[in-house]
Amino acid sequence: MAAVKPAAMSRFTKLVDALPATIPFVAPEETERLRGRPFAARIGANESVFGPSPKALAAMQRAAAESWMYCDPASHDLCQALAVFHGIPVDAIRVGEGIDGLFGLVVRLLVEPGSAVVTSAGAYPTFNYHVAGFGAVLHTVPYHDDHEDPEALAAKAHEVDARLVYLSNPDNPMGTWHGADTIAALLDRLPTGCTLVLDEAYIEFAPEGTALPFDVADPRLLRFRTFSKARGMAGLRIGYVIGAPETVGGLDRIRNHFGVNRVAQAGALAALADDAHLQDVRRKVVESRNRIAEIAAENGLTSIPSATNFVAVDCGRDGAYAQSVMKALMELDIFVRMPGISPLNRCIRVSCGTPEDMDLLSQALPKALSAAE
Amino acid sequence: MAAVKPAAMSRFTKLVDALPATIPFVAPEETERLRGRPFAARIGANESVFGPSPKALAAMQRAAAESWMYCDPASHDLCQALAVFHGIPVDAIRVGEGIDGLFGLVVRLLVEPGSAVVTSAGAYPTFNYHVAGFGAVLHTVPYHDDHEDPEALAAKAHEVDARLVYLSNPDNPMGTWHGADTIAALLDRLPTGCTLVLDEAYIEFAPEGTALPFDVADPRLLRFRTFSKARGMAGLRIGYVIGAPETVGGLDRIRNHFGVNRVAQAGALAALADDAHLQDVRRKVVESRNRIAEIAAENGLTSIPSATNFVAVDCGRDGAYAQSVMKALMELDIFVRMPGISPLNRCIRVSCGTPEDMDLLSQALPKALSAAE
Repeated sequence: MAAVKPAAMSRFTKLVDALPATIPFVAPEETERLRGRPFAARIGANESVFGPSPKALAAMQRAAAESWMYCDPASHDLCQALAVFHGIPVDAIRVGEGIDGLFGLVVRLLVEPGSAVVTSAGAYPTFNYHVAGFGAVLHTVPYHDDHEDPEALAAKAHEVDARLVYLSNPDNPMGTWHGADTIAALLDRLPTGCTLVLDEAYIEFAPEGTALPFDVADPRLLRFRTFSKARGMAGLRIGYVIGAPETVGGLDRIRNHFGVNRVAQAGALAALADDAHLQDVRRKVVESRNRIAEIAAENGLTSIPSATNFVAVDCGRDGAYAQSVMKALMELDIFVRMPGISPLNRCIRVSCGTPEDMDLLSQALPKALSAAE
Repeated sequence: MAAVKPAAMSRFTKLVDALPATIPFVAPEETERLRGRPFAARIGANESVFGPSPKALAAMQRAAAESWMYCDPASHDLCQALAVFHGIPVDAIRVGEGIDGLFGLVVRLLVEPGSAVVTSAGAYPTFNYHVAGFGAVLHTVPYHDDHEDPEALAAKAHEVDARLVYLSNPDNPMGTWHGADTIAALLDRLPTGCTLVLDEAYIEFAPEGTALPFDVADPRLLRFRTFSKARGMAGLRIGYVIGAPETVGGLDRIRNHFGVNRVAQAGALAALADDAHLQDVRRKVVESRNRIAEIAAENGLTSIPSATNFVAVDCGRDGAYAQSVMKALMELDIFVRMPGISPLNRCIRVSCGTPEDMDLLSQALPKALSAAE
C-alpha cells in the first residue's frame, strides 16, 4: 500500500511536484490558535494599527451592501483616480489582489521555467515563492550594510542574464532605503530586456526624494504600490502596478478579471482621496518608530534607521539569539517577526503600533531579553 | 518605427505571447460607461438581486473596521464551518478568490502545457480562459438537447486522454441539470487519472438529488462552490473547492495565501449560518423563474426549465436574431446576456430579479422583439 502513489498526487504537474509544501508566512492567527490565546500587541506583520481612513471605512460599509453585484473587472474608477493622483496615463496601471497577487502575475507574464531572477538574500519571501512557483531560478546577492545592494544586484543580473531583478525601496525587512538617483542608476546598469520589480509598499513613509518620478515610457521598470500599509487596508487585498502600458496590458491576458473585491475597490478609492488621514498616519508612524528606537536603546540595543512603518532592532548577537528574543516576546503576547537570513537575522522586526502597543513592548522587552539570555 | 517590437513586449513568455487579448466577459459597468447611462434592471450576470444575508452584511461591516489586519491565509474559521456544514473533513476544503480564481489554480496544479482538457461547446468561458492561460489544449463536445452531455464528455476524454473534464451542474448558460446518478456514472466512465471539475455554483437552486453525496476519498472529483450566487455575495469574491485532501492540499504550494479578503471571509462565515435567508432567496428565485417563463410565453417564446437563478429564453430563431433581441433589451436598459455558441445562442439568458425587475422586463420584451424583427 505505502508504495502506491495516490492517483490524485500523480496528476500534479512536474513543476508543482517539485515545489516545497512550505508557505511564505505563518499568520498571527495560526500562532494564536496553536498557543491558545490571542496576542496583546499585534506589531509583527507591518500592518497599520492606525487603521484605514474613516472615509474609506464608510465607503467599504456602503459597498458591502452592494456586494451582490460582481466587482468592476477594470477597477475603472480606482484606476482613473490613481492616474490623476500620480499624474500618469490610466493604461499604465493595473489593480490586483495585493502586491502578492500582482507578483504572481508578473512572474507568470515575464519569466519562463528556467529563467534567472535576482533578489537579495533575506528580501521579501513571497516574491521568491512566486518565482519558484513558475519554475524560474532565483539567484541572490547579500545585503550591504543592512541595505539592498544595487551594484551587486546589477552585477548578478548580468552574470546570470536575469529577466527580473527584485528590489524593495524602502526595504523590508530592514527598513533602509535608497534615494531615487540610486534606483535610476540601477536601471541603467541592468542587462538589456531585464525588468526591475520595484516594490514600493512602504514608499509613503519614506523621505522626499526616495521615489523616482514616473516615466511610464520606460519598459525596464514595474512599480508596485499597495493600500495595505500607509492606507491601513491589509485585509482588503488591493494593490496596483505601474509600468509601460505594453507591459502591464499583458496582465489582462492572464489575470483573474473579476478577482478584486468590490469592497476593496470602494475602500481604496475613498482612501486615496483622504490625504489628511495619510498625513496623520505618517506622523503616528514617525512617533512610533522613535519610540521603538527609544525602547531598544533603554535595553541596550541599537535599531536600524527606518523609512517604513517598522523598525529592525539589532539584538547584537547571532540569529539564534534574536530568535529566542522574538520567541520570548511572543510568549509575552507581543507578536513580532524577524528576518530569516544571516546577518539580517541578528535583528527582530517590530512594526509601529499605538502608544498602548509601545507600552506593552516596553514592559515586555526587558523580560524577553532576560528570558533569552 | 512600426516594425520595432517594444522591448517590454518581447519579454513576455512564449505562452503569454500566444494568448489572445480577449477577456471572458464585458462587465455591465463597462457597457454602462460606453453607452453613458445605467441599466434599469441588472439581470444579466446571474447575480442575486436579493442580496446577502443581513447577518452577513453586518459581519462584513464589522470586518471592514478590522481590515487593517491581514486576513487569515488559512480561512480557518470558514473552513471549519464548511466542514461541519457539509459533513466532511476540513482538509478536503480550500477557500479561494471565487470559483474563477480556484479554476486558475486547479488548472495550474493539474495541467501541463499541451495537456488535453474537455468541456462542452458553450460552457463557462472563464474555465476555458484559464486552460488556455496555462497552455493546455481545449477539446469540446456539443450540448445535447440543451444539456451538457456526460457520455460525449467521457468519450472525448478517452479519445484525447484528458487530464480534466469540466461540467457545471446545474449548467450555465442553459440552466439545465443532471441527477447525481448521472454524475456518478460520468465519474466511472472517465479515463484513469482524469479529474472531473464539477462546477456547482448554482447547486443551492437545484432539486434534491442533484448533488452527489460527498466522498472526499475519491481523487477523481473536484467540486466548486461559491458564495456569489444563492448567498448573494458576488462582489466579495469567495468560493471553495472540495476534493481529496492530497489534491486540494497541492493548492497550498501555488495559491496566493493572503489572497482571500478579510471582509469576504467574515461575510461567508455569517452567510453560511443563515439558512432562513437562503430559503427565502430560493423561494424568490423560483417565483422569478416562473415569472420569466410567463413573460416569455406572453411573447410567444418558450423557456428552458432551469435549476439555477436564471432562465434561458428561446427566441425561436438563430443566434443573430437572439443577439438583436438582447441588444434591443439593452437599449431599453435591461441588462441580459446570451450563450455564445450555436445552437445555444438561439436563447437569451435572463437572471432572476425583483418583481420590479420583472415588470421592467415584461414592458421591454415586446418592444425588443418588435425592434429585432
